[in-house]
Amino acid sequence: MATSPVLIVGSMALDSVRTPAGSVQDALGGAADYSGVAASFFSPVQLVGVVGDDFPKEHLEYLESRNIDLQGVQIVRGGKTFRWSGFYDFDLNVAHTMDTKLNVFANFKPEIPETYRDAQYVFLANIDPELQLQVLDQVRKPRLTVCDTMNFWIDRKLDEVVEVLKRVDMVFLNDAEARQITGHLSVVKAARALQALGPKTVIVKKGEHGALLFHGRDHFSAPSYPLEDIADPTGAGDSFAGGFIGYVASQGNISERTFRRGVIYGSVMASYNVEDFSLNRLRSLTMEDINRRYSEFKEIAFFEALEEATA
Amino acid sequence: MATSPVLIVGSMALDSVRTPAGSVQDALGGAADYSGVAASFFSPVQLVGVVGDDFPKEHLEYLESRNIDLQGVQIVRGGKTFRWSGFYDFDLNVAHTMDTKLNVFANFKPEIPETYRDAQYVFLANIDPELQLQVLDQVRKPRLTVCDTMNFWIDRKLDEVVEVLKRVDMVFLNDAEARQITGHLSVVKAARALQALGPKTVIVKKGEHGALLFHGRDHFSAPSYPLEDIADPTGAGDSFAGGFIGYVASQGNISERTFRRGVIYGSVMASYNVEDFSLNRLRSLTMEDINRRYSEFKEIAFFEALEEATA
Repeated sequence: MATSPVLIVGSMALDSVRTPAGSVQDALGGAADYSGVAASFFSPVQLVGVVGDDFPKEHLEYLESRNIDLQGVQIVRGGKTFRWSGFYDFDLNVAHTMDTKLNVFANFKPEIPETYRDAQYVFLANIDPELQLQVLDQVRKPRLTVCDTMNFWIDRKLDEVVEVLKRVDMVFLNDAEARQITGHLSVVKAARALQALGPKTVIVKKGEHGALLFHGRDHFSAPSYPLEDIADPTGAGDSFAGGFIGYVASQGNISERTFRRGVIYGSVMASYNVEDFSLNRLRSLTMEDINRRYSEFKEIAFFEALEEATA
Repeated sequence: MATSPVLIVGSMALDSVRTPAGSVQDALGGAADYSGVAASFFSPVQLVGVVGDDFPKEHLEYLESRNIDLQGVQIVRGGKTFRWSGFYDFDLNVAHTMDTKLNVFANFKPEIPETYRDAQYVFLANIDPELQLQVLDQVRKPRLTVCDTMNFWIDRKLDEVVEVLKRVDMVFLNDAEARQITGHLSVVKAARALQALGPKTVIVKKGEHGALLFHGRDHFSAPSYPLEDIADPTGAGDSFAGGFIGYVASQGNISERTFRRGVIYGSVMASYNVEDFSLNRLRSLTMEDINRRYSEFKEIAFFEALEEATA
């Protein structure tokens, strides 16, 4: 197993979140933190982001303890870390934002350290597409580039989002975003239209309905894990993305079979992540937990072995 | 393969439907017709329903040509057949009813012919739950009883719906109906609550998101087929139900493995059915078509063989 580091660029935040299950204040959050920690279970991670000097030292220590290289993290002296606060009601699919303070994130310009520029696996978490393009300009010859985005950027900077799509190998989005970019209500048509824009591979995250992988003409449908209780959905998409790219980087190949398994490892990480607030569940997670749930996914999806196909 | 007949009780109708793909007038429709024809690919079918003498003879001949026993179909002299007209807009998940004329269906009282009363497999399609209970009173010792229902009855006759649930082995519903009956937003919690009401097995149909099977403590998630174009969603749920119970009856066992495969055969039948209006696609369908798509479902869901589970 050839393990290659994963370069992740995205937000690092302190989140205050309230859900029917409880609440946290100024807890570790942000797309880079969720995806970085999730990826770190499979591969070393190189992180690029920005925080203020109010960012608790224990968070930096925790990230380093996960084999995450923080050389690319800018710590702005006298600056304040990006803060998001929001809540979820009965319907955990809908995040209600109460306040967003970009703080030092407002002037973030990703600078990729020289030692990161040969990264083979690159995840552009959800940030301004113009910054995503700057990252793509700085990496040399990545084997796999993956981007995420969100409705905020699709509304405001669609041209730049499309420009990013032209230049990446793979995009992660949810079904609403896929529809929003392409105008197709059918998720299958939307995915095919996204592929026509550039990325050979499209992963549509559908929350409680699982995830779909479109790779060339191939199609894979991953189930969701039947959780009865979700404490906090924050970071589900980012822990999915981190689990996916971390696993793929650990395999040393970018075959469709590896991508399919990556979708399941991503789903495993997301399903654990939502069991607790912030990154708390990931803190106590073990590879044994991950492999056990991966096996459960196999049971959930199984109805007949491929070999019996024409029986 | 011990093939046992399937007893199906439900509506027989003439539908007028308009969708973005076209329209039909007074075409063969109704839950019993869709589910009966879908089941007939796997097992002989015994149908119980009612039509007026305006019901075209060619429809009766078509049903008989499918090895469907029509002894239980009442033909009311001078009566008019149940007619439904509706349309679907851009969002094919939402049926808009323009007109419903119950006609002879308004006074339907299911009478199960003596030769049907030993049926081992019984599907109670979506009809008044009081009529479903009357059917259960008339069958002797079925091996598997399955019911469907809809929001209309949940709104108006919840007590009777719950009474049916207490007496059947299995219920089919969509996620909205599962939530409506139980008050749980989580589909997993809703399914567990439905099981607590009586049926050991709950199948939640999620349209483009596939289907979930809850059987005892077991859980199976079936993908949907990635259709790019849907002509007419009418009858999707009924052709799913028919494919399921027809397949299960053909297997001569009611194991969880058979149920899982039945969910896939049901999904195959539903995915074909929506490719054309009325039952038109099922008219030209072959077992070869069915087996080919079943194999595609295996490819769509596959990421790792169960035997490799702990590799």
